[in-house]
Amino acid sequence: MRKVLVIGAGKSTAVLIKYFQDKAESENLQIIIGDISIENAQKLANNHPFSEAILLDVFDKNSRENAIQNADIVVSMLPARFHIEVAKDCLKYEKNMVTASYVSEEMQELDSEVRKKGLVFMNEIGLDPGIDHMSAMQVIDRIRNQGGKIILFESFTGGLVAPESDTNLWNYKFTWNPRNVVIAGQGGSAEFLQEGTYKYIPYHKLFRRTEFLEVEGYGRFEAYANRNSLKYQSIYGLEDILTLYRGTIRRVGFSRAWNIFVQLGMTADDYTIENSEHMSYRDFMNSFLPYSPSDSVELKLRHYLKIDQDDIMWDKLLELDLFNPHKKVSISNATPAQILQKILMDKWTLDDGDKDMIVMYHKFGYELNGKRQQIDATMVSIGEDQTYTAMARTVGLPVAMAALRILNKEYTHSGVQIPIKKEIYDPILKELEDFGITFNEIERDYLGYNPDGVKG
Amino acid sequence: MRKVLVIGAGKSTAVLIKYFQDKAESENLQIIIGDISIENAQKLANNHPFSEAILLDVFDKNSRENAIQNADIVVSMLPARFHIEVAKDCLKYEKNMVTASYVSEEMQELDSEVRKKGLVFMNEIGLDPGIDHMSAMQVIDRIRNQGGKIILFESFTGGLVAPESDTNLWNYKFTWNPRNVVIAGQGGSAEFLQEGTYKYIPYHKLFRRTEFLEVEGYGRFEAYANRNSLKYQSIYGLEDILTLYRGTIRRVGFSRAWNIFVQLGMTADDYTIENSEHMSYRDFMNSFLPYSPSDSVELKLRHYLKIDQDDIMWDKLLELDLFNPHKKVSISNATPAQILQKILMDKWTLDDGDKDMIVMYHKFGYELNGKRQQIDATMVSIGEDQTYTAMARTVGLPVAMAALRILNKEYTHSGVQIPIKKEIYDPILKELEDFGITFNEIERDYLGYNPDGVKG
Repeated sequence: MRKVLVIGAGKSTAVLIKYFQDKAESENLQIIIGDISIENAQKLANNHPFSEAILLDVFDKNSRENAIQNADIVVSMLPARFHIEVAKDCLKYEKNMVTASYVSEEMQELDSEVRKKGLVFMNEIGLDPGIDHMSAMQVIDRIRNQGGKIILFESFTGGLVAPESDTNLWNYKFTWNPRNVVIAGQGGSAEFLQEGTYKYIPYHKLFRRTEFLEVEGYGRFEAYANRNSLKYQSIYGLEDILTLYRGTIRRVGFSRAWNIFVQLGMTADDYTIENSEHMSYRDFMNSFLPYSPSDSVELKLRHYLKIDQDDIMWDKLLELDLFNPHKKVSISNATPAQILQKILMDKWTLDDGDKDMIVMYHKFGYELNGKRQQIDATMVSIGEDQTYTAMARTVGLPVAMAALRILNKEYTHSGVQIPIKKEIYDPILKELEDFGITFNEIERDYLGYNPDGVKG
Repeated sequence: MRKVLVIGAGKSTAVLIKYFQDKAESENLQIIIGDISIENAQKLANNHPFSEAILLDVFDKNSRENAIQNADIVVSMLPARFHIEVAKDCLKYEKNMVTASYVSEEMQELDSEVRKKGLVFMNEIGLDPGIDHMSAMQVIDRIRNQGGKIILFESFTGGLVAPESDTNLWNYKFTWNPRNVVIAGQGGSAEFLQEGTYKYIPYHKLFRRTEFLEVEGYGRFEAYANRNSLKYQSIYGLEDILTLYRGTIRRVGFSRAWNIFVQLGMTADDYTIENSEHMSYRDFMNSFLPYSPSDSVELKLRHYLKIDQDDIMWDKLLELDLFNPHKKVSISNATPAQILQKILMDKWTLDDGDKDMIVMYHKFGYELNGKRQQIDATMVSIGEDQTYTAMARTVGLPVAMAALRILNKEYTHSGVQIPIKKEIYDPILKELEDFGITFNEIERDYLGYNPDGVKG
């Protein structure tokens, strides 16, 4: 039996574990699930004959080292900041390792030692980062092999609610960490390239600079810019590219309404509100509006942010009960972002039976034989239920597939790396098709960054 | 001869030095001016018989200790972060010390030792902080002595250009550190109290939440909120106050136009712009606007920020030459704020003969004998020229006056402190009147925070 150690039994691991369990007999696998909560680990082990749940506190050196020493490959599904302890042990005991997280500086620093020992530390092989890297590089390499030159790359991903569960005015529910949604886009300006010009969007304008995306069969979406588009220039070898943009997908109208929270200051996370515990939702709203001896919170808000009387945004605010003078915040020393998160969780939590949806959209512009062309590639994945979600599927499957290939020595390129090599992305993208994760490619006229198709 | 050591011969010290020089004979003073530039120090010494210029690098322990050991009192006019080295030596050699800067945590930590040795470390005794503390506490203590209870305190200060030198559309020129003007308001939300309710304004809304102020003989001004109003609650003993607000004064219309820079992201100081050196002013503007194959920078900006064709703000932008495709930024690896500062300095630098102006405005609301009343107090000071500026006068004179009083043992209350005691503010405010620095008090109906006088 080959031992696969999975550390961290969080939301995203259900599909990953099931993949290993389904292959356990044919691939001769023993799956060891380690978590700080033995109950979580046992739930995922699910009495499966080849699965074992163990208590694993990643900060307890002994239990961590024992588990790693015992394993044939290590999959770390911990929050990103905890990988490094696992990685150091994997180096010490010469184990290969797979994570779905961005390569941290500390992780990158291990590269030369990892190479020396001929180990594979594969990272960024979940959804985003992960499937985005693989699906993009497959098309980019194909165009290059044909002799084409990439001049535009735009890439968008969103974790949304499935159409059949889309029951609120925001067309949004929390299908992942709510906190990350509330503070999304903070911490600096978004930077990207449009037709050879560097562009910068400050946080407070991020949700007013969206663009539309159409996905056949699913209608229209919108996307706002991610902060870090430019780093993909060197990773993908796109030094001469004219347009490079990455963004986050929402349903149309979300960003315009979300911008109300940003403008008010409700997403701020760097100070706490006085007396937050005893404040009502209405008080919370009012703390961002000027005092008036006469005017209502409602009118002050409409005036301040120039919201017309018949604007649909207003109904979105009402749906969240933001003007309710009776509902209490009930969190002491809370930041605005923490309070807003609580208010949103009242309404945006998935109901039993709700399904999630992942949408990914790539645009590739290129020059081939003197002609400018464009390929758009889209992928939509819908969850089964609240355990086997689209998020858990698209994050977990590529991790599991990569781990099995590395265990089987089908992929042996050593070093701290991300999945941008053909030898890893081709077989995994192929296998993902068996799970319904497929990209639909459309050839289009190249318009450059010109979403409205305007002639100059 | 008693030796007054003045460390730092910057812009704000000219009036301070002249005050000591004018008193040198009658008060038996030797003025030692220490600066890292001997030329700066000599310029201020100005061959005055009782003045001496010395080279003093505050990071050179020997020269610093020698100078301090030799002095009878030390005035530090260094940038705030450098005071602490001076303060530690003053403690060691048992010298009293005066600064115009906010009390840092490190400085505050010296308090018990300073008290033990019976020393006076007087801080925050320039303009703002300084004259604001003294003039406010004088009125607050007077009202309290009459049995009144303070329910509102609003305080505003601005460093502006004098009416006779006010020659641009922004009604503003740099009379102080331009960088502080460009990044003003950054680093967190503004917090204050209005009629018993805590209010918060995020940076990107700061310049749209101004209020008007009228100063007799000088017309209308506007003010935007400072970040730190609430800390004055405990300092001034205003625990039960309903309204507490501090702000910065500009001429009307400045903030609305400045908001364009904030909205675009031009005041950001946390990242550098690619290729900034070779970029034109127009390119700089364009980097905050979406790419378009057809539309001009001008139209994109008007559309993005909804600036009407006949809006006066537009002329303010034209005056700064912001759309000029030929003027180069010429600073490498510059942040947006550094580039904006350069563009503004082209136009907002004082001309020879230009004068500056300081405006201070306090509002005191109080209950006395069951009646609510209000006192407004205003002070305007206009500079003589570009050496004896209103800023140098209002910062330097109270520092000098305090130093002389402490030297003469007229003020002996020990500790690390700020000028909120009657024993210091009464004589200094009285003496400031001789230099034209006077407050004009007006009794008004109390309206609470209700600038438009609306009946509820």
